[in-house]
Amino acid sequence: MAIQHEMRLRVRYSETDQMGVVHHASYLIYLEEGRTALMRDNLNLPYEEVERAGFAFAVRKLDVRYRQGAVYGDEIVVHTHIEGMRGASITYGYRLLRASDDALLITGSVETVCMSLETMGPASIPDHIREAVQTQLD
Amino acid sequence: MAIQHEMRLRVRYSETDQMGVVHHASYLIYLEEGRTALMRDNLNLPYEEVERAGFAFAVRKLDVRYRQGAVYGDEIVVHTHIEGMRGASITYGYRLLRASDDALLITGSVETVCMSLETMGPASIPDHIREAVQTQLD
Amino acid sequence: MAIQHEMRLRVRYSETDQMGVVHHASYLIYLEEGRTALMRDNLNLPYEEVERAGFAFAVRKLDVRYRQGAVYGDEIVVHTHIEGMRGASITYGYRLLRASDDALLITGSVETVCMSLETMGPASIPDHIREAVQTQLD
Amino acid sequence: MAIQHEMRLRVRYSETDQMGVVHHASYLIYLEEGRTALMRDNLNLPYEEVERAGFAFAVRKLDVRYRQGAVYGDEIVVHTHIEGMRGASITYGYRLLRASDDALLITGSVETVCMSLETMGPASIPDHIREAVQTQLD
Repeated sequence: MAIQHEMRLRVRYSETDQMGVVHHASYLIYLEEGRTALMRDNLNLPYEEVERAGFAFAVRKLDVRYRQGAVYGDEIVVHTHIEGMRGASITYGYRLLRASDDALLITGSVETVCMSLETMGPASIPDHIREAVQTQLD
Repeated sequence: MAIQHEMRLRVRYSETDQMGVVHHASYLIYLEEGRTALMRDNLNLPYEEVERAGFAFAVRKLDVRYRQGAVYGDEIVVHTHIEGMRGASITYGYRLLRASDDALLITGSVETVCMSLETMGPASIPDHIREAVQTQLD
Repeated sequence: MAIQHEMRLRVRYSETDQMGVVHHASYLIYLEEGRTALMRDNLNLPYEEVERAGFAFAVRKLDVRYRQGAVYGDEIVVHTHIEGMRGASITYGYRLLRASDDALLITGSVETVCMSLETMGPASIPDHIREAVQTQLD
Repeated sequence: MAIQHEMRLRVRYSETDQMGVVHHASYLIYLEEGRTALMRDNLNLPYEEVERAGFAFAVRKLDVRYRQGAVYGDEIVVHTHIEGMRGASITYGYRLLRASDDALLITGSVETVCMSLETMGPASIPDHIREAVQTQLD
Protein backbone atom coordinates (compact mmCIF):
# COMPACT_ATOMS: atom_id res chain seq x y z
CA MET A 1 0.00 0.00 0.00
CA ALA A 2 1.26 3.44 -0.79
CA ILE A 3 2.99 5.35 2.01
CA GLN A 4 1.12 8.46 3.12
CA HIS A 5 2.84 11.77 3.59
CA GLU A 6 1.21 14.24 5.94
CA MET A 7 1.84 17.93 6.31
CA ARG A 8 -0.05 20.75 7.97
CA LEU A 9 -0.52 24.29 6.86
CA ARG A 10 -2.59 27.19 8.00
CA VAL A 11 -4.85 29.08 5.60
CA ARG A 12 -3.39 32.48 4.68
CA TYR A 13 -5.63 35.53 4.48
CA SER A 14 -4.60 36.16 0.88
CA GLU A 15 -5.89 32.68 -0.03
CA THR A 16 -9.50 33.61 0.79
CA ASP A 17 -11.92 35.33 -1.55
CA GLN A 18 -14.96 37.51 -1.03
CA MET A 19 -17.18 34.46 -0.65
CA GLY A 20 -15.47 34.16 2.74
CA VAL A 21 -13.80 30.82 2.04
CA VAL A 22 -10.52 29.66 0.56
CA HIS A 23 -10.47 30.37 -3.18
CA HIS A 24 -10.58 27.13 -5.16
CA ALA A 25 -7.26 27.83 -6.91
CA SER A 26 -5.49 28.19 -3.56
CA TYR A 27 -5.95 24.47 -2.89
CA LEU A 28 -3.77 23.69 -5.91
CA ILE A 29 -0.94 25.38 -4.05
CA TYR A 30 -1.61 23.13 -1.06
CA LEU A 31 -1.48 20.11 -3.37
CA GLU A 32 1.82 21.30 -4.81
CA GLU A 33 3.17 21.83 -1.30
CA GLY A 34 2.02 18.30 -0.43
CA ARG A 35 3.86 16.61 -3.27
CA THR A 36 7.06 18.63 -3.00
CA ALA A 37 7.10 17.94 0.76
CA LEU A 38 6.60 14.23 0.02
CA MET A 39 9.52 14.37 -2.41
CA ARG A 40 11.72 16.10 0.18
CA ASP A 41 10.68 14.04 3.20
CA ASN A 42 9.92 10.57 1.81
CA LEU A 43 12.09 10.43 -1.30
CA ASN A 44 14.97 12.59 -0.08
CA LEU A 45 14.59 14.54 -3.32
CA PRO A 46 14.10 18.24 -2.61
CA TYR A 47 12.50 19.62 -5.73
CA GLU A 48 15.19 22.30 -6.09
CA GLU A 49 17.70 19.46 -6.55
CA VAL A 50 15.50 17.81 -9.16
CA GLU A 51 15.66 21.07 -11.10
CA ARG A 52 19.38 21.49 -10.54
CA ALA A 53 19.78 18.06 -12.14
CA GLY A 54 17.99 19.45 -15.20
CA PHE A 55 14.51 18.00 -14.73
CA ALA A 56 11.08 19.25 -13.77
CA PHE A 57 7.68 17.69 -13.21
CA ALA A 58 4.93 19.62 -14.97
CA VAL A 59 1.28 19.13 -14.12
CA ARG A 60 -0.48 17.26 -16.91
CA LYS A 61 -3.86 16.46 -15.37
CA LEU A 62 -5.97 17.64 -12.46
CA ASP A 63 -8.86 15.68 -11.08
CA VAL A 64 -10.06 17.46 -7.95
CA ARG A 65 -13.27 17.19 -5.99
CA TYR A 66 -14.16 19.98 -3.53
CA ARG A 67 -16.21 18.60 -0.64
CA GLN A 68 -16.23 21.30 1.99
CA GLY A 69 -14.75 24.78 2.12
CA ALA A 70 -11.96 25.80 4.47
CA VAL A 71 -11.96 29.23 6.06
CA TYR A 72 -9.34 31.63 7.32
CA GLY A 73 -7.85 30.38 10.55
CA ASP A 74 -8.29 26.72 9.64
CA GLU A 75 -5.36 24.40 9.86
CA ILE A 76 -5.36 21.94 6.99
CA VAL A 77 -3.87 18.47 6.94
CA VAL A 78 -2.59 17.50 3.50
CA HIS A 79 -2.33 13.73 2.97
CA THR A 80 -0.37 12.91 -0.16
CA HIS A 81 0.61 9.56 -1.58
CA ILE A 82 2.00 8.38 -4.88
CA GLU A 83 -0.78 6.65 -6.78
CA GLY A 84 1.34 5.39 -9.60
CA MET A 85 4.23 5.84 -12.00
CA ARG A 86 3.85 5.00 -15.66
CA GLY A 87 6.24 5.95 -18.42
CA ALA A 88 7.32 9.52 -17.73
CA SER A 89 4.42 10.35 -15.44
CA ILE A 90 3.98 10.22 -11.66
CA THR A 91 0.48 10.59 -10.22
CA TYR A 92 -0.21 11.81 -6.70
CA GLY A 93 -3.36 11.11 -4.72
CA TYR A 94 -4.71 13.50 -2.12
CA ARG A 95 -6.99 13.85 0.86
CA LEU A 96 -7.18 17.22 2.56
CA LEU A 97 -8.80 17.43 5.98
CA ARG A 98 -9.52 20.25 8.39
CA ALA A 99 -7.38 19.61 11.47
CA SER A 100 -9.96 20.73 14.04
CA ASP A 101 -12.66 18.20 13.17
CA ASP A 102 -11.20 15.93 10.47
CA ALA A 103 -13.81 17.16 7.97
CA LEU A 104 -12.91 16.03 4.48
CA LEU A 105 -12.26 19.09 2.30
CA ILE A 106 -10.69 17.83 -0.90
CA THR A 107 -9.99 14.55 -2.64
CA GLY A 108 -8.26 14.20 -5.94
CA SER A 109 -5.27 13.34 -7.98
CA VAL A 110 -2.64 15.25 -9.92
CA GLU A 111 -0.65 13.70 -12.72
CA THR A 112 2.78 15.16 -13.36
CA VAL A 113 5.10 14.44 -16.24
CA CYS A 114 8.87 14.56 -16.31
CA MET A 115 10.38 17.29 -18.47
CA SER A 116 13.91 18.13 -19.45
CA LEU A 117 14.67 21.74 -18.53
CA GLU A 118 17.15 21.81 -21.39
CA THR A 119 14.78 20.83 -24.18
CA MET A 120 11.58 21.84 -22.33
CA GLY A 121 10.13 18.61 -23.74
CA PRO A 122 9.13 15.31 -22.13
CA ALA A 123 11.94 13.21 -20.68
CA SER A 124 12.36 9.81 -19.11
CA ILE A 125 12.30 9.88 -15.34
CA PRO A 126 15.95 9.67 -14.19
CA ASP A 127 16.85 6.38 -12.52
CA HIS A 128 17.50 7.78 -9.05
CA ILE A 129 14.05 9.37 -9.02
CA ARG A 130 12.40 6.27 -10.44
CA GLU A 131 13.96 4.12 -7.74
CA ALA A 132 13.00 6.50 -4.98
CA VAL A 133 9.40 6.63 -6.21
CA GLN A 134 9.30 2.83 -6.46
CA THR A 135 9.99 2.53 -2.72
CA GLN A 136 6.69 4.34 -2.10
CA LEU A 137 4.76 1.92 -4.24
CA ASP A 138 6.04 -1.46 -3.10
CA MET B 1 -25.21 22.75 -29.63
CA ALA B 2 -23.84 24.84 -26.82
CA ILE B 3 -22.99 28.47 -27.57
CA GLN B 4 -19.28 29.25 -27.28
CA HIS B 5 -18.02 32.26 -25.42
CA GLU B 6 -14.61 33.56 -26.39
CA MET B 7 -12.35 35.95 -24.53
CA ARG B 8 -8.71 36.86 -24.83
CA LEU B 9 -6.21 37.60 -22.14
CA ARG B 10 -2.50 38.14 -22.03
CA VAL B 11 -0.28 36.18 -19.65
CA ARG B 12 0.87 38.30 -16.72
CA TYR B 13 4.44 38.09 -15.47
CA SER B 14 3.26 37.15 -11.99
CA GLU B 15 1.48 34.13 -13.47
CA THR B 16 4.75 32.50 -14.54
CA ASP B 17 6.99 30.36 -12.33
CA GLN B 18 10.67 29.55 -12.36
CA MET B 19 10.13 26.76 -14.87
CA GLY B 20 9.65 29.64 -17.33
CA VAL B 21 6.03 28.86 -18.15
CA VAL B 22 2.62 29.80 -16.76
CA HIS B 23 2.14 28.14 -13.35
CA HIS B 24 -0.55 25.47 -13.53
CA ALA B 25 -2.75 27.16 -10.91
CA SER B 26 -2.84 30.38 -12.96
CA TYR B 27 -4.92 28.65 -15.61
CA LEU B 28 -7.71 28.18 -13.06
CA ILE B 29 -7.95 31.94 -12.91
CA TYR B 30 -8.29 32.03 -16.68
CA LEU B 31 -11.08 29.45 -16.45
CA GLU B 32 -12.85 31.53 -13.80
CA GLU B 33 -12.47 34.61 -15.99
CA GLY B 34 -13.95 32.62 -18.86
CA ARG B 35 -17.10 31.54 -17.05
CA THR B 36 -17.77 34.89 -15.36
CA ALA B 37 -17.30 36.62 -18.71
CA LEU B 38 -19.73 34.12 -20.26
CA MET B 39 -22.23 34.91 -17.49
CA ARG B 40 -21.83 38.64 -18.08
CA ASP B 41 -21.79 38.58 -21.87
CA ASN B 42 -24.04 35.66 -22.84
CA LEU B 43 -26.41 35.43 -19.87
CA ASN B 44 -26.52 39.11 -18.96
CA LEU B 45 -25.74 38.04 -15.39
CA PRO B 46 -22.64 39.83 -14.09
CA TYR B 47 -21.42 37.66 -11.24
CA GLU B 48 -21.44 40.61 -8.82
CA GLU B 49 -25.23 40.77 -9.34
CA VAL B 50 -25.57 37.04 -8.69
CA GLU B 51 -23.91 37.65 -5.35
CA ARG B 52 -25.97 40.75 -4.61
CA ALA B 53 -29.05 38.55 -5.07
CA GLY B 54 -27.64 36.30 -2.33
CA PHE B 55 -26.19 33.44 -4.38
CA ALA B 56 -22.78 32.16 -5.34
CA PHE B 57 -21.42 29.35 -7.49
CA ALA B 58 -18.70 27.41 -5.75
CA VAL B 59 -16.37 25.09 -7.64
CA ARG B 60 -17.17 21.46 -6.88
CA LYS B 61 -15.07 19.58 -9.39
CA LEU B 62 -12.10 20.22 -11.63
CA ASP B 63 -11.16 18.04 -14.53
CA VAL B 64 -8.34 19.73 -16.39
CA ARG B 65 -5.86 18.43 -18.91
CA TYR B 66 -2.71 20.47 -19.62
CA ARG B 67 -1.54 19.93 -23.19
CA GLN B 68 1.01 22.63 -23.85
CA GLY B 69 2.45 25.38 -21.71
CA ALA B 70 1.92 29.08 -22.32
CA VAL B 71 4.70 31.55 -21.75
CA TYR B 72 4.94 35.19 -20.79
CA GLY B 73 3.92 37.38 -23.69
CA ASP B 74 1.42 34.85 -25.05
CA GLU B 75 -2.12 35.91 -25.72
CA ILE B 76 -4.56 33.19 -24.76
CA VAL B 77 -7.99 32.56 -26.20
CA VAL B 78 -10.40 31.14 -23.65
CA HIS B 79 -13.33 29.26 -25.20
CA THR B 80 -16.03 28.54 -22.64
CA HIS B 81 -19.38 26.88 -23.05
CA ILE B 82 -21.98 25.49 -20.68
CA GLU B 83 -21.78 21.72 -20.81
CA GLY B 84 -24.81 21.08 -18.66
CA MET B 85 -27.07 22.00 -15.76
CA ARG B 86 -28.31 19.34 -13.38
CA GLY B 87 -29.94 19.99 -10.04
CA ALA B 88 -28.01 22.79 -8.39
CA SER B 89 -24.92 22.41 -10.53
CA ILE B 90 -23.74 24.07 -13.73
CA THR B 91 -20.78 22.59 -15.58
CA TYR B 92 -18.57 24.60 -17.93
CA GLY B 93 -16.44 23.14 -20.70
CA TYR B 94 -13.20 24.75 -21.85
CA ARG B 95 -10.67 24.91 -24.60
CA LEU B 96 -7.76 27.32 -24.22
CA LEU B 97 -5.64 28.13 -27.25
CA ARG B 98 -2.59 30.26 -27.85
CA ALA B 99 -3.67 33.12 -30.11
CA SER B 100 -0.52 33.25 -32.23
CA ASP B 101 -0.68 29.69 -33.59
CA ASP B 102 -3.93 28.18 -32.29
CA ALA B 103 -1.97 25.59 -30.27
CA LEU B 104 -4.25 23.80 -27.83
CA LEU B 105 -3.10 24.52 -24.28
CA ILE B 106 -5.85 23.29 -21.99
CA THR B 107 -9.05 21.27 -22.20
CA GLY B 108 -11.29 20.53 -19.29
CA SER B 109 -14.43 21.11 -17.36
CA VAL B 110 -15.36 22.80 -14.11
CA GLU B 111 -18.49 21.93 -12.19
CA THR B 112 -19.95 24.67 -10.01
CA VAL B 113 -22.74 24.38 -7.50
CA CYS B 114 -25.22 27.02 -6.42
CA MET B 115 -24.85 28.22 -2.83
CA SER B 116 -26.89 30.54 -0.67
CA LEU B 117 -24.66 33.27 0.72
CA GLU B 118 -27.02 33.50 3.70
CA THR B 119 -26.80 29.86 4.80
CA MET B 120 -23.49 29.10 3.03
CA GLY B 121 -25.13 25.81 2.06
CA PRO B 122 -26.33 24.43 -1.27
CA ALA B 123 -29.33 26.19 -2.84
CA SER B 124 -31.58 25.71 -5.85
CA ILE B 125 -30.51 27.73 -8.83
CA PRO B 126 -32.81 30.79 -8.93
CA ASP B 127 -35.29 30.76 -11.80
CA HIS B 128 -33.87 33.76 -13.66
CA ILE B 129 -30.45 32.13 -13.72
CA ARG B 130 -31.84 28.73 -14.69
CA GLU B 131 -33.71 30.27 -17.61
CA ALA B 132 -30.69 32.22 -18.77
CA VAL B 133 -28.51 29.12 -18.66
CA GLN B 134 -31.15 27.11 -20.52
CA THR B 135 -30.87 29.47 -23.49
CA GLN B 136 -27.24 28.35 -23.87
CA LEU B 137 -28.15 24.70 -23.95
CA ASP B 138 -31.07 24.62 -26.36
CA MET C 1 12.06 48.77 22.68
CA ALA C 2 9.52 46.98 20.56
CA ILE C 3 9.17 43.24 20.98
CA GLN C 4 10.22 41.23 17.93
CA HIS C 5 8.10 38.43 16.57
CA GLU C 6 9.86 35.79 14.51
CA MET C 7 8.38 33.21 12.20
CA ARG C 8 9.83 30.98 9.53
CA LEU C 9 8.38 29.96 6.22
CA ARG C 10 9.64 28.13 3.21
CA VAL C 11 9.32 29.60 -0.28
CA ARG C 12 6.59 27.88 -2.30
CA TYR C 13 7.13 27.04 -5.94
CA SER C 14 4.10 29.08 -6.96
CA GLU C 15 5.69 32.15 -5.38
CA THR C 16 8.55 32.18 -7.88
CA ASP C 17 8.45 33.78 -11.33
CA GLN C 18 10.32 33.16 -14.54
CA MET C 19 13.21 35.33 -13.40
CA GLY C 20 13.97 32.38 -11.13
CA VAL C 21 13.42 34.24 -7.86
CA VAL C 22 10.49 34.94 -5.56
CA HIS C 23 8.07 37.34 -7.27
CA HIS C 24 8.07 40.71 -5.52
CA ALA C 25 4.35 40.55 -4.68
CA SER C 26 4.83 37.22 -2.87
CA TYR C 27 6.78 38.98 -0.13
CA LEU C 28 3.67 40.99 0.77
CA ILE C 29 2.05 37.70 1.70
CA TYR C 30 5.01 36.93 3.96
CA LEU C 31 4.59 40.36 5.58
CA GLU C 32 0.89 39.69 6.12
CA GLU C 33 1.73 36.30 7.61
CA GLY C 34 4.24 38.02 9.90
CA ARG C 35 1.80 40.53 11.33
CA THR C 36 -1.12 38.12 11.73
CA ALA C 37 1.23 35.65 13.46
CA LEU C 38 2.41 38.49 15.73
CA MET C 39 -1.24 39.28 16.55
CA ARG C 40 -1.95 35.61 17.32
CA ASP C 41 1.24 34.86 19.24
CA ASN C 42 2.16 38.11 20.98
CA LEU C 43 -1.22 39.83 21.35
CA ASN C 44 -3.37 36.74 21.76
CA LEU C 45 -5.60 38.18 19.03
CA PRO C 46 -6.04 35.70 16.19
CA TYR C 47 -7.09 37.81 13.24
CA GLU C 48 -10.20 35.68 12.65
CA GLU C 49 -11.41 36.81 16.09
CA VAL C 50 -10.73 40.45 15.25
CA GLU C 51 -13.01 40.01 12.24
CA ARG C 52 -15.64 38.11 14.24
CA ALA C 53 -15.73 41.14 16.56
CA GLY C 54 -16.61 43.25 13.49
CA PHE C 55 -13.25 44.86 12.74
CA ALA C 56 -10.54 44.56 10.15
CA PHE C 57 -7.14 46.14 9.53
CA ALA C 58 -6.73 47.29 5.94
CA VAL C 59 -3.35 48.13 4.49
CA ARG C 60 -2.99 51.88 3.99
CA LYS C 61 0.67 52.28 3.15
CA LEU C 62 3.55 50.12 1.98
CA ASP C 63 7.17 51.14 2.23
CA VAL C 64 9.26 48.16 1.20
CA ARG C 65 12.90 47.89 0.18
CA TYR C 66 14.06 44.73 -1.64
CA ARG C 67 17.71 44.01 -0.87
CA GLN C 68 18.33 40.50 -2.09
CA GLY C 69 16.15 37.93 -3.80
CA ALA C 70 15.07 34.66 -2.24
CA VAL C 71 14.87 31.52 -4.33
CA TYR C 72 12.83 28.33 -4.23
CA GLY C 73 13.99 26.11 -1.41
CA ASP C 74 15.01 29.03 0.82
CA GLU C 75 13.68 29.22 4.33
CA ILE C 76 12.85 32.79 5.26
CA VAL C 77 12.84 34.30 8.72
CA VAL C 78 10.24 37.03 9.09
CA HIS C 79 10.98 39.48 11.92
CA THR C 80 7.98 41.67 12.68
CA HIS C 81 7.52 44.32 15.30
CA ILE C 82 4.97 47.02 15.95
CA GLU C 83 6.53 50.36 15.05
CA GLY C 84 3.72 52.49 16.32
CA MET C 85 0.03 53.09 16.88
CA ARG C 86 -1.48 56.46 16.10
CA GLY C 87 -5.19 57.22 15.90
CA ALA C 88 -6.78 54.30 14.05
CA SER C 89 -3.55 53.07 12.50
CA ILE C 90 -1.02 50.45 13.52
CA THR C 91 2.32 50.30 11.71
CA TYR C 92 4.45 47.18 11.51
CA GLY C 93 8.19 47.12 10.85
CA TYR C 94 9.91 44.24 9.11
CA ARG C 95 13.22 42.56 8.47
CA LEU C 96 13.23 39.39 6.37
CA LEU C 97 16.32 37.22 6.37
CA ARG C 98 17.34 34.04 4.59
CA ALA C 99 17.71 31.38 7.26
CA SER C 100 20.76 29.64 5.78
CA ASP C 101 23.12 32.64 5.85
CA ASP C 102 21.21 35.48 7.54
CA ALA C 103 21.31 37.52 4.33
CA LEU C 104 18.99 40.52 4.59
CA LEU C 105 16.26 40.20 1.95
CA ILE C 106 13.66 42.83 2.79
CA THR C 107 13.24 45.77 5.10
CA GLY C 108 10.14 47.87 5.31
CA SER C 109 7.00 48.95 7.05
CA VAL C 110 3.29 48.45 6.49
CA GLU C 111 0.69 50.80 7.91
CA THR C 112 -2.72 49.30 8.59
CA VAL C 113 -5.88 51.14 9.54
CA CYS C 114 -8.79 49.89 11.60
CA MET C 115 -12.06 49.45 9.70
CA SER C 116 -15.56 48.56 10.78
CA LEU C 117 -16.77 45.56 8.79
CA GLU C 118 -20.31 46.85 9.25
CA THR C 119 -19.81 50.30 7.74
CA MET C 120 -16.65 49.38 5.74
CA GLY C 121 -15.35 52.76 6.90
CA PRO C 122 -12.57 53.74 9.33
CA ALA C 123 -13.17 52.91 12.99
CA SER C 124 -11.46 53.53 16.30
CA ILE C 125 -9.27 50.67 17.41
CA PRO C 126 -11.30 48.72 20.02
CA ASP C 127 -9.93 49.05 23.56
CA HIS C 128 -8.89 45.42 23.97
CA ILE C 129 -6.81 45.62 20.81
CA ARG C 130 -5.34 49.00 21.74
CA GLU C 131 -4.27 47.69 25.12
CA ALA C 132 -2.75 44.55 23.65
CA VAL C 133 -0.80 46.57 21.12
CA GLN C 134 0.38 48.95 23.83
CA THR C 135 2.11 46.08 25.65
CA GLN C 136 4.35 45.68 22.60
CA LEU C 137 5.38 49.31 22.60
CA ASP C 138 6.18 49.97 26.25
CA MET D 1 6.46 66.44 -18.41
CA ALA D 2 6.36 62.70 -18.31
CA ILE D 3 4.08 60.93 -20.78
CA GLN D 4 1.22 59.05 -19.14
CA HIS D 5 0.33 55.53 -20.09
CA GLU D 6 -3.21 54.41 -19.44
CA MET D 7 -4.61 50.91 -19.36
CA ARG D 8 -7.81 49.41 -18.04
CA LEU D 9 -8.39 46.13 -16.31
CA ARG D 10 -11.28 44.51 -14.55
CA VAL D 11 -10.94 43.11 -11.04
CA ARG D 12 -10.80 39.30 -11.05
CA TYR D 13 -12.69 37.32 -8.45
CA SER D 14 -9.51 35.61 -7.29
CA GLU D 15 -8.03 39.04 -6.50
CA THR D 16 -10.57 39.71 -3.74
CA ASP D 17 -10.27 38.53 -0.14
CA GLN D 18 -12.78 37.79 2.57
CA MET D 19 -12.91 41.44 3.56
CA GLY D 20 -14.91 41.84 0.34
CA VAL D 21 -12.39 44.06 -1.41
CA VAL D 22 -9.36 43.60 -3.62
CA HIS D 23 -6.50 42.13 -1.57
CA HIS D 24 -3.70 44.68 -1.16
CA ALA D 25 -1.11 42.45 -2.86
CA SER D 26 -3.28 42.20 -5.99
CA TYR D 27 -2.67 45.87 -6.74
CA LEU D 28 1.04 45.13 -7.15
CA ILE D 29 0.08 42.96 -10.10
CA TYR D 30 -1.86 45.88 -11.57
CA LEU D 31 1.21 48.08 -11.13
CA GLU D 32 3.37 45.47 -12.87
CA GLU D 33 0.83 45.26 -15.68
CA GLY D 34 0.93 49.05 -15.94
CA ARG D 35 4.68 49.32 -16.36
CA THR D 36 5.06 46.36 -18.72
CA ALA D 37 2.22 47.77 -20.84
CA LEU D 38 3.98 51.15 -20.85
CA MET D 39 7.17 49.44 -21.99
CA ARG D 40 5.31 47.62 -24.76
CA ASP D 41 3.12 50.53 -25.91
CA ASN D 42 5.23 53.64 -25.30
CA LEU D 43 8.78 52.30 -25.54
CA ASN D 44 8.17 49.56 -28.09
CA LEU D 45 9.98 47.23 -25.69
CA PRO D 46 7.82 44.21 -24.84
CA TYR D 47 9.24 42.88 -21.61
CA GLU D 48 9.70 39.40 -23.08
CA GLU D 49 12.16 40.95 -25.55
CA VAL D 50 14.03 42.69 -22.73
CA GLU D 51 14.50 39.27 -21.17
CA ARG D 52 15.46 37.63 -24.45
CA ALA D 53 18.21 40.25 -24.69
CA GLY D 54 19.47 38.98 -21.33
CA PHE D 55 18.15 41.68 -19.00
CA ALA D 56 15.46 42.02 -16.38
CA PHE D 57 14.12 44.79 -14.16
CA ALA D 58 13.72 43.68 -10.57
CA VAL D 59 11.66 45.65 -8.09
CA ARG D 60 13.91 47.40 -5.58
CA LYS D 61 11.51 49.68 -3.74
CA LEU D 62 7.77 50.03 -3.24
CA ASP D 63 6.13 53.17 -1.96
CA VAL D 64 2.39 52.66 -2.22
CA ARG D 65 -0.50 54.50 -0.61
CA TYR D 66 -3.93 52.83 -0.57
CA ARG D 67 -6.69 55.44 -0.64
CA GLN D 68 -9.88 53.57 -1.41
CA GLY D 69 -10.64 49.91 -1.97
CA ALA D 70 -11.78 48.45 -5.26
CA VAL D 71 -14.37 45.70 -5.34
CA TYR D 72 -15.19 42.82 -7.65
CA GLY D 73 -16.78 44.11 -10.83
CA ASP D 74 -14.89 47.39 -10.78
CA GLU D 75 -12.97 48.46 -13.81
CA ILE D 76 -9.68 50.07 -12.86
CA VAL D 77 -7.73 52.65 -14.82
CA VAL D 78 -4.00 52.33 -14.31
CA HIS D 79 -2.07 55.53 -15.07
CA THR D 80 1.66 54.88 -15.26
CA HIS D 81 4.48 57.24 -16.06
CA ILE D 82 8.24 57.10 -15.75
CA GLU D 83 9.28 59.28 -12.85
CA GLY D 84 12.97 59.04 -13.41
CA MET D 85 16.02 57.04 -14.48
CA ARG D 86 19.21 57.15 -12.44
CA GLY D 87 22.14 54.82 -12.79
CA ALA D 88 20.71 51.35 -13.29
CA SER D 89 17.28 52.16 -11.89
CA ILE D 90 14.02 53.24 -13.48
CA THR D 91 11.22 54.51 -11.25
CA TYR D 92 7.56 54.41 -12.24
CA GLY D 93 4.85 56.65 -10.80
CA TYR D 94 1.24 55.52 -10.53
CA ARG D 95 -2.30 56.69 -10.08
CA LEU D 96 -5.04 54.05 -10.09
CA LEU D 97 -8.64 55.19 -10.47
CA ARG D 98 -11.98 53.41 -10.50
CA ALA D 99 -13.40 53.87 -14.00
CA SER D 100 -17.03 54.37 -12.95
CA ASP D 101 -16.52 57.48 -10.79
CA ASP D 102 -12.83 58.39 -11.10
CA ALA D 103 -12.31 57.70 -7.40
CA LEU D 104 -8.59 57.65 -6.58
CA LEU D 105 -7.66 54.17 -5.34
CA ILE D 106 -3.87 54.05 -5.25
CA THR D 107 -0.94 56.40 -5.63
CA GLY D 108 2.66 55.35 -5.44
CA SER D 109 5.93 54.61 -7.05
CA VAL D 110 7.94 51.50 -7.83
CA GLU D 111 11.69 51.58 -8.36
CA THR D 112 13.11 48.86 -10.57
CA VAL D 113 16.76 48.04 -11.16
CA CYS D 114 18.36 46.53 -14.23
CA MET D 115 19.76 43.04 -13.80
CA SER D 116 21.77 40.77 -16.02
CA LEU D 117 20.00 37.42 -16.37
CA GLU D 118 23.40 35.84 -16.94
CA THR D 119 25.05 37.00 -13.73
CA MET D 120 21.82 37.66 -11.81
CA GLY D 121 23.54 40.80 -10.58
CA PRO D 122 22.99 44.51 -11.29
CA ALA D 123 23.75 45.68 -14.81
CA SER D 124 23.89 48.95 -16.71
CA ILE D 125 20.71 49.71 -18.57
CA PRO D 126 21.39 48.81 -22.23
CA ASP D 127 21.59 51.81 -24.56
CA HIS D 128 18.47 51.05 -26.58
CA ILE D 129 16.40 50.88 -23.39
CA ARG D 130 18.01 54.00 -21.95
CA GLU D 131 17.22 55.94 -25.11
CA ALA D 132 13.65 54.72 -25.22
CA VAL D 133 13.09 55.67 -21.58
CA GLN D 134 14.67 59.08 -22.18
CA THR D 135 11.97 59.91 -24.74
CA GLN D 136 9.40 59.63 -21.95
CA LEU D 137 11.24 62.06 -19.74
CA ASP D 138 12.11 64.92 -22.08
